[in-house]
Amino acid sequence: MSYFSSDFKLGILGGGQLGKMMLTETRKFDIQTYVLDPSNEAPCQFGATRFFQGDLTDYEQVMALGKQVDVLTIEIENVNLEALETLEKEGLKVFPSPKTLRLIQNKGNQKDFYLKNQLPTAPFTRFSTLEKLKQAVESSEITLPFVWKVAQGGYDGNGVKVIRSFSDLESLAEAECIAEQMIPFKNELAVIVARSAAGEIKTYPVVEMEFHPEANQVEYVICPARISQEVSDKARAVALEVSKAFNHVGLLAVEMFQTHDDAILINEVAPRPHNSGHYSIEASYTSQFEQHIRAILGLPLGNTDSKVAGIMVNLVGEDGYSGAVVYENIEKIMAIDGVTPHIYGKKETRPFRKMGHVTIVNENMDKARKIAQEVKETIKVISK
Amino acid sequence: MSYFSSDFKLGILGGGQLGKMMLTETRKFDIQTYVLDPSNEAPCQFGATRFFQGDLTDYEQVMALGKQVDVLTIEIENVNLEALETLEKEGLKVFPSPKTLRLIQNKGNQKDFYLKNQLPTAPFTRFSTLEKLKQAVESSEITLPFVWKVAQGGYDGNGVKVIRSFSDLESLAEAECIAEQMIPFKNELAVIVARSAAGEIKTYPVVEMEFHPEANQVEYVICPARISQEVSDKARAVALEVSKAFNHVGLLAVEMFQTHDDAILINEVAPRPHNSGHYSIEASYTSQFEQHIRAILGLPLGNTDSKVAGIMVNLVGEDGYSGAVVYENIEKIMAIDGVTPHIYGKKETRPFRKMGHVTIVNENMDKARKIAQEVKETIKVISK
Repeated sequence: MSYFSSDFKLGILGGGQLGKMMLTETRKFDIQTYVLDPSNEAPCQFGATRFFQGDLTDYEQVMALGKQVDVLTIEIENVNLEALETLEKEGLKVFPSPKTLRLIQNKGNQKDFYLKNQLPTAPFTRFSTLEKLKQAVESSEITLPFVWKVAQGGYDGNGVKVIRSFSDLESLAEAECIAEQMIPFKNELAVIVARSAAGEIKTYPVVEMEFHPEANQVEYVICPARISQEVSDKARAVALEVSKAFNHVGLLAVEMFQTHDDAILINEVAPRPHNSGHYSIEASYTSQFEQHIRAILGLPLGNTDSKVAGIMVNLVGEDGYSGAVVYENIEKIMAIDGVTPHIYGKKETRPFRKMGHVTIVNENMDKARKIAQEVKETIKVISK
Repeated sequence: MSYFSSDFKLGILGGGQLGKMMLTETRKFDIQTYVLDPSNEAPCQFGATRFFQGDLTDYEQVMALGKQVDVLTIEIENVNLEALETLEKEGLKVFPSPKTLRLIQNKGNQKDFYLKNQLPTAPFTRFSTLEKLKQAVESSEITLPFVWKVAQGGYDGNGVKVIRSFSDLESLAEAECIAEQMIPFKNELAVIVARSAAGEIKTYPVVEMEFHPEANQVEYVICPARISQEVSDKARAVALEVSKAFNHVGLLAVEMFQTHDDAILINEVAPRPHNSGHYSIEASYTSQFEQHIRAILGLPLGNTDSKVAGIMVNLVGEDGYSGAVVYENIEKIMAIDGVTPHIYGKKETRPFRKMGHVTIVNENMDKARKIAQEVKETIKVISK
């Protein structure tokens, strides 16, 4: 199969920022892309060979896209899996497979899968309804504090909450959920594993999420993580085991905790390019987006090493601002060496909406970290 | 002026590979682009906000594009300058300016400009017609051998020929031309200078063109050039002088010869992203395409240093093949660490047509050079 300047067509379900950054790579390779997204203002409206507005959870619309392409991938998990299963049965290459997506879409199933495969993860209990969770708390079957996670549809911190009191239970969504034991940790780490359709496997270096000391929000994604070689090796080994268990094709981003006694516990996975890998566009020999394309097409995987240290800062909408977006002080951060803003192309900002990210690269990690702080303190995503 | 996710529109005259690689950067920054190109299969047909098919040398069509945008730039010099002059008079920002383009479009004027500004270049004589050149050779006013260059419209080695005998004169185009003294040189070098609308200036490192020992064709563009610090400093200084003389806005690629006694002579310039800067996408902190966008918008210029050594190999159509393109062995080169193909998106190959390029990056220049040779010997641009 020839992919380059050929009749080959790659379908992408979802046209957000992850899709947009994939399109950069498909343009570089001149691979045709057909993208489906519910919004006609989606970041992928430009750069795709064809862009279709439609519902990703609708069987017919996903089928219609699948019928026009040679390989189908996703940039968001919440898509119609029945359509993907039908398309796969009919012979279409769907990566990640609907089987992998089904396992991952439900966090209860995902956690059961880790247990079944003897992969390290925090102890948990599943509940089919919020009511049953409440009963378990009242009867002290579950003890406070614990971490509540909605089983399906959570994203970006939505659908995850630390429950410290009975009253915290009141604001939770009425849905299937899990209660996870709260395990204090030193670091939140992530490893992206690439596995190609031809079976080749590579891991990216371990990245570290640095949290704001008070706000408990990820402020910086740092590559390489400032951890010992031993812990780094262990995290990459665990990520590889997870990848082998899923037997996925494409990327698998494995989020993990490093506990106080240096155990590695799997938090959750995403079978696609991931926020924790954005640094790779500027810092790595092969960006995660190029790697995803290589993997699902069965091309050789690229070098996952870094050229330089990389730090990523998310650009989220400032609290208190809604409407036509303005990137205040963006010129100031662009004047700093090694600073690259990525603007996703969403016209309207809202509090905490992911509007872009900034990558800081430098030969020296300490310098990169100082610049990252300067960037974070300078640029603001506000409205007109 | 806000450029990012705003109503601002950048116009680009020309929709070839240089425009396509600019679009990657405007997508990254979410800057709107309106592109004009004669071919509806141009590489820029995807990725622009709007793509218009039309004649770049037609006054009305260039005016029509200019009327719709806030800043106008080019990716090819051969455009209607009268339209640019009118647009500039009417207040549109046109970078590079029509004045710069007019100077550069005609190689005779370009050479006169170097003389006038006491910039080093090889001695030459201008001829308004081929007939007058022939008379000058017959009367021994011009002595063989010399380098013939067509004054306008030459590209990629077209319009340049070494004249060693009277019979070599027979195949030349009937056009205005120059006869340049043939000066033996050690190296062909190039430096890209970025000058922003705000007046900030930066130079990229010196690159070296390595020629095939027999075919006299550039095989590799190598950054940094394997020359002494002294020669490198001199080449960057000359490039800066050229840039100051032109007072251009945007990039200026300055091609130079290093003579056997280490003098630097200016060969020619291009006021735009240039083949000699393609390595920068993977090797530099700021790619030449991002830098061009920063420069013409008056944004701060980015760091021109390299993260790693970079070598660029052009992918040109193999002699003897015409038709639907096939990139033979592209998977093989993609299996090598640090190798990135760029496929421009031209459906049809022809002998020597520029179809793409491959960048090789490595911490170690010797390794990069070995890999570049392997790439060159492996991939072939053929037809089905």
